[in-house]
Amino acid sequence: MSSTYSTEKPPLSQPQIHSLIENIKDYQLTHGSLLKNVHTREESAVLARGIPVSLFPIQFPKAAFNRAIRLQTLFNELYVRIASSDDFLSKILAPLIRDDAFTRCLWDIYSAAKEEGIVQEVSLGVFRSDYMIEVSHDDDGPWQLKQVEFNTCTVAGGVHANLVADMHRFLHKTGAYGEFFGEALEEMRDVPVNGTIEGLVGGLTSAHHIYGEQMDNCDRRTGILFIVQHNNYNICDERPLEYGLWNQFPPIPVYRLHFRDILDHVSLGPSRELLFSSPSCPFSPLEISVVYLRAGYEPDEYDDRGRAARLLLEKSRTIKCPSLLSHLTTFKKVQQELAMPGVLEKFLPPEQCADLRATFAPIYPMDQSELGVHARDLAVNPKTSVDYILKPSLEGGGNNIYGSDISYFLETIPEDQWSRFILMKTIKSPTRDGVLMSFDGVYDGPTISELGVFGVCLWRQKAENDSVEILKNRDVGWSFKTKPEEMEEMSVVKGYGFFSSPSLVKEA
Amino acid sequence: MSSTYSTEKPPLSQPQIHSLIENIKDYQLTHGSLLKNVHTREESAVLARGIPVSLFPIQFPKAAFNRAIRLQTLFNELYVRIASSDDFLSKILAPLIRDDAFTRCLWDIYSAAKEEGIVQEVSLGVFRSDYMIEVSHDDDGPWQLKQVEFNTCTVAGGVHANLVADMHRFLHKTGAYGEFFGEALEEMRDVPVNGTIEGLVGGLTSAHHIYGEQMDNCDRRTGILFIVQHNNYNICDERPLEYGLWNQFPPIPVYRLHFRDILDHVSLGPSRELLFSSPSCPFSPLEISVVYLRAGYEPDEYDDRGRAARLLLEKSRTIKCPSLLSHLTTFKKVQQELAMPGVLEKFLPPEQCADLRATFAPIYPMDQSELGVHARDLAVNPKTSVDYILKPSLEGGGNNIYGSDISYFLETIPEDQWSRFILMKTIKSPTRDGVLMSFDGVYDGPTISELGVFGVCLWRQKAENDSVEILKNRDVGWSFKTKPEEMEEMSVVKGYGFFSSPSLVKEA
Repeated sequence: MSSTYSTEKPPLSQPQIHSLIENIKDYQLTHGSLLKNVHTREESAVLARGIPVSLFPIQFPKAAFNRAIRLQTLFNELYVRIASSDDFLSKILAPLIRDDAFTRCLWDIYSAAKEEGIVQEVSLGVFRSDYMIEVSHDDDGPWQLKQVEFNTCTVAGGVHANLVADMHRFLHKTGAYGEFFGEALEEMRDVPVNGTIEGLVGGLTSAHHIYGEQMDNCDRRTGILFIVQHNNYNICDERPLEYGLWNQFPPIPVYRLHFRDILDHVSLGPSRELLFSSPSCPFSPLEISVVYLRAGYEPDEYDDRGRAARLLLEKSRTIKCPSLLSHLTTFKKVQQELAMPGVLEKFLPPEQCADLRATFAPIYPMDQSELGVHARDLAVNPKTSVDYILKPSLEGGGNNIYGSDISYFLETIPEDQWSRFILMKTIKSPTRDGVLMSFDGVYDGPTISELGVFGVCLWRQKAENDSVEILKNRDVGWSFKTKPEEMEEMSVVKGYGFFSSPSLVKEA
Repeated sequence: MSSTYSTEKPPLSQPQIHSLIENIKDYQLTHGSLLKNVHTREESAVLARGIPVSLFPIQFPKAAFNRAIRLQTLFNELYVRIASSDDFLSKILAPLIRDDAFTRCLWDIYSAAKEEGIVQEVSLGVFRSDYMIEVSHDDDGPWQLKQVEFNTCTVAGGVHANLVADMHRFLHKTGAYGEFFGEALEEMRDVPVNGTIEGLVGGLTSAHHIYGEQMDNCDRRTGILFIVQHNNYNICDERPLEYGLWNQFPPIPVYRLHFRDILDHVSLGPSRELLFSSPSCPFSPLEISVVYLRAGYEPDEYDDRGRAARLLLEKSRTIKCPSLLSHLTTFKKVQQELAMPGVLEKFLPPEQCADLRATFAPIYPMDQSELGVHARDLAVNPKTSVDYILKPSLEGGGNNIYGSDISYFLETIPEDQWSRFILMKTIKSPTRDGVLMSFDGVYDGPTISELGVFGVCLWRQKAENDSVEILKNRDVGWSFKTKPEEMEEMSVVKGYGFFSSPSLVKEA
């Protein structure tokens, strides 16, 4: 079917688009595809708005999608091995630990926990590898899958992506897209089923059960603790995971705790069990099997209490998602280091390294090494910087400087601070026509999409010999975000991107 | 367990209530327990707020609940027989047909359709019988189930009620109510499972299939048409029924059409098939198997186009939910007439009549009959009217005048208009402590609850001998609404009542 498409988007009339928008709004309301308005004054009231979405699935090459899915367990393993190697991390992060307060803060917490002895060998990782596709230089070569970034900490968007894919599949069935994606009433073939919610719940469930197997005292009630931000407008991306855990049989208790309130509700038991007490938890104190962080990734969360709280979690017996070392692997500096010759090979066999490396875009340090000096030359010259993005070394997304802005930006900061950035080549993605709706209106024009593949990994790091045993390693779904071509950032909750789904097409 | 309760509501601390409210808000957002804000200016934006709800289930006598469920199929049958007897209806509605423009309008449409010949013998009814409980006169006798009203037209609240019951059951499992309703983590035993959504979908599905069996030309695609109001803020009570139908296997196509737009999209085929055409429906023209009205119940919808539209539906071959005669049985005048001696017996065997009659509160005509004159005496005297409610004869709810207001109200209207009302004794319901939340704040105090039982009935009325064959007759779930004791009305969407669920308790 796919190869017979004559246009890149469904040929919808204005009345059809109007009807589609009405159907989407109501679907969002009835399925929790919403952003919560957290500034409502009334405590007893909740207001919400629909999340920005694409009206229909956007074309994406099938081979690239399948490749990204296939690579996920390999990337999971790579990042697990990095997170299990504090030698490697301490070496590559050394300049940041020295110059950057946040990196130093996290590293110090890790070091303090390590000093007291790590009592939990098992860690859970919820990862997301983000990609765009790139057309090769001659502009008519095959599409190439290129990695934008790899996220290991407080990875979001899985629930929204799942719901939007479900919505597009439903709308197709009702004939809202005519016959563009195949026959109405039939299941949609071009958009893959997205089971991210189930996959993430499955990962947390596995970790919970592993913890149970380790327990000496089986009488004690255990449950999972979600560490969340207060005033969180993105609860629709978190709550369905909790409901999924409660709906296991037997149910897995899950409670939420604000990062800033950890010290008020959490303490350590005699064997460093993490114990949670709250008026809302009738099992208090509940022994926490897994602590799942959807907070604790912003520097300003780490005041004295924040540091003490993260240390308490880290040195406890609970399974962390993520552990501090795993959290640190989300920094761009790690991604840049992995792109250096010979580095991947420290962690994986050569043929697998080649497979992963093919997805890397050129990425450079901005330090005083030979490669760093080359990158600085590229960055300070507006003629060359136009093809690059300057990213803070330590972040998992956001605060990037794009193209010709880079040279002006670098003029504003002292040269000895430049090493806090990395320079990455812009991925030149082909555009696809799309129609995107949000509170700000409807955009109808060329768009660019980003595929994120979710991975779940559960591993045991044996302290005595530093070996890693991988207990579970899965790809568990995907997210697909689309933005207007001119937009630089992709974040949906910040108002740039739109959740969407990929309509998989064969290459022309 | 129930009989061991020491208080009427869970003993919750302020922190527990705070946490409960947060959990409810997020549950509402993620499950579509919302009211849509339809006055958002942006076409591409949707805003919503949580529906008013009770924080926890409210006590209700188990025997009365079970009795109401058991009576539903009997009430279904009663109203089906009334709706199949235009002689009876024309007689009791005669004064209204003469004096009231809306009744006359509906009757005229029915008569016009009848004149052309009714081509569809099958009708679908979605009914809801509403009850309160009353303590008998000596105040310590058993609780009695008393019927508030019986609704046969555009019956709402089924989806909301289902979702709120699910929510209370979920919150119980998490321990949000402590051990008040039984052990946390266990399924709640006191609140019955509410399957209203599935039940209503099942009724519509059965009607759709019956239509399919009647068809000569099996090649034509059929589907269900929801006739809805424009600017509908209560879409969360309608959309899940559509999704449920689409999710049947094979899917049943469902489209929505505003009542005011019927004539633009609907026409009759050669055998009076109802044919629907719309840009959003790729099967246009779609033959409509069932037309399900969630609009068309307000007099101002019946301008010339509205009348023509309803006539078009009525004379078509589609199965109507409700038919015009069934619609007319929702009028209070019918309920009052059924309470007259000997009337029930025209429709059902004596022992069943006794069963139903036991639920009737005293209810009188306000006409010039002997009973009407008695009612007028009661109504004009504030000392006696305090125990009564004056209700418009033709409505299914709302616009009531309560207690001591009645005599003043009657002074404002000419006496020859009084027969447009009926007088009903107020049901003195025992109060139960409750905590209710809405956009207007939190109410903590004595409450009164109303149980609604949903029924679905599918029947064939044979034109040749006026006999009725009941094809399906079910109770399909319930709604439970709670209001502060002083509040007179119960409507949730109008801002008076709160959706809740019953915690079934044995009588003391």
